[in-house]
Amino acid sequence: MRIVEDELIERIRRRIPSSEGGALRLGIGHDAALIHSENPDWAVTCDQFLEDIHFIIDKHPPASVGYKALTRATSDIVAMGARPRFFLLSLALPVERSGTWLNELLSGMARASKLLGLRLVGGDTARSPGGRERVALNLVVLGEVQHGREIGRAGARPGDGIYVTGILGRSQLGLELLLRGMAKRGKYRKFLFPHYYPVLPFDFGLWLGRHNLPSAMMDISDGLSTDLARLCRSSGVGAHIYADQIPTVSVPGSLPQIPALAPLTLALHGGEDYGLLFTVPRQFSSQIPEVFHRTRTRTTRIGEIVRGSGVSVVGRGGEVSPLIPGGWDPFARR
Amino acid sequence: MRIVEDELIERIRRRIPSSEGGALRLGIGHDAALIHSENPDWAVTCDQFLEDIHFIIDKHPPASVGYKALTRATSDIVAMGARPRFFLLSLALPVERSGTWLNELLSGMARASKLLGLRLVGGDTARSPGGRERVALNLVVLGEVQHGREIGRAGARPGDGIYVTGILGRSQLGLELLLRGMAKRGKYRKFLFPHYYPVLPFDFGLWLGRHNLPSAMMDISDGLSTDLARLCRSSGVGAHIYADQIPTVSVPGSLPQIPALAPLTLALHGGEDYGLLFTVPRQFSSQIPEVFHRTRTRTTRIGEIVRGSGVSVVGRGGEVSPLIPGGWDPFARR
Repeated sequence: MRIVEDELIERIRRRIPSSEGGALRLGIGHDAALIHSENPDWAVTCDQFLEDIHFIIDKHPPASVGYKALTRATSDIVAMGARPRFFLLSLALPVERSGTWLNELLSGMARASKLLGLRLVGGDTARSPGGRERVALNLVVLGEVQHGREIGRAGARPGDGIYVTGILGRSQLGLELLLRGMAKRGKYRKFLFPHYYPVLPFDFGLWLGRHNLPSAMMDISDGLSTDLARLCRSSGVGAHIYADQIPTVSVPGSLPQIPALAPLTLALHGGEDYGLLFTVPRQFSSQIPEVFHRTRTRTTRIGEIVRGSGVSVVGRGGEVSPLIPGGWDPFARR
Repeated sequence: MRIVEDELIERIRRRIPSSEGGALRLGIGHDAALIHSENPDWAVTCDQFLEDIHFIIDKHPPASVGYKALTRATSDIVAMGARPRFFLLSLALPVERSGTWLNELLSGMARASKLLGLRLVGGDTARSPGGRERVALNLVVLGEVQHGREIGRAGARPGDGIYVTGILGRSQLGLELLLRGMAKRGKYRKFLFPHYYPVLPFDFGLWLGRHNLPSAMMDISDGLSTDLARLCRSSGVGAHIYADQIPTVSVPGSLPQIPALAPLTLALHGGEDYGLLFTVPRQFSSQIPEVFHRTRTRTTRIGEIVRGSGVSVVGRGGEVSPLIPGGWDPFARR
């Protein structure tokens, strides 16, 4: 079997929304994409999605790989309060993955691109290097934001409330089941969906940006303990969060009672939920809805920003302990 | 040894120009870069640079890997007549490459970024997957272009002259010497430079765009035979080129007299020169300088666009033969 680059690009193009028009003056098939700026500011990010680092090819369905690779990259755009618009895909592919497997990957990616309002505007394809060949994806996402309306990580101030969207640890629970080979049992299968196909609260992110409510915002991609520490470091502040206020997942009682499957552990250190983590000055707190009606996105106040540095967890009995970042690390060996 | 992501990012940031300011409202360390649009249109492209596909780690100096990865991606921006402005770097790295080797790669990349006027605005880092770990780079480059002043591939018309910049086949000659283990001999060493550190004619590309002279333009990255066929296909035309007008490299007489080292073969099928290939309507041909004074970029008229399709080479005796694309193919096995 032989891959012909032009045919491969044509297949990608047919499957993923990529029509020129509007702000997209030139798309696939040119030296570079050409984008006209309707709003004055562009948010740009890129993220790798690598076999054996970000996904396991024998465990993750190809549609989930395509869906998550794009969703993960877009999450950074949403976290700035920007509207996702365009993306580029770099693909390194072993020959044996260029058939049905790739088609399913593309259909998962197409699903994410439609949900997120994204059009494919360019990219690059290559054979992955020989030996044990692996799939490698690199996604670039561009989002538009009105000048001055972006939300950074550095604006959190003492007294601000700390909020998260959704339930934390759902994706990690799915991953734990997958790694333990329990994904195929019918009763556990539904727990895999949040891991395979996380949903970004991007309408709510845009709403927050438009109303200029958060003092700081980012996405929870690597786990609350890791990401909240980053937000605090950027803002030069510390944080207190309350164990009994963190929205945790219901772990089925039939699962082994081990630390890795404890709801609070999953919520504090589990990655890939792609919810929003944001801080809100006290005077705006009444404007944060418990449930954002349009998408039924749930928000929870889990603590507050304090002076100093570092994140502490306040337990049920009032005991305070430091929260050590224990989330996903791209350089850790699994 | 262990890679700590934040330290790695800090090292990259110290070495490569990445200061915020001007159009770059937010750079490294945020969810996404935030770019203010000064001109209305952005050209965006991405390119992979993979160990064992695009470079050989035991043969190519790390500074060359960093330099070429960025230069190659930027070449597509220059080929549209856009001004390179910002770039993002995704890096998948085996642990054993994270010391001196990476520092040298970054210094080569810094050199290219200064030459090209580029600032690093973001990216992603990860460990490369286990087993035989490989280095993988993905470069995203953004360039600005005045609305309506970009040069595409599709505008070539019958009668237009076909031009190239520089000498063709210089990079391929260097690669052939490298692959044959002749790079270390003093007398051949100078032939390696065009392969290690190709120079983009980006001032000339901007000048062409500003004066709106070319009907079509692209870069020669994969070889003239492959890239001219692409330009013709995009424009719906054919081309005649003249063997004795093609600017070829002087191959030292001491090298073996084999087809792969013949000057015309190197010029027609050799990749990675990153010169410009462009077409110019007859009425503008007198405005194309033989040598662009500012950068001493040489231009050569090598043929003309004709009706129909396909590229033909006219030999010294007037004989016409079809030119089969034989350039670089990212899916070919070396």
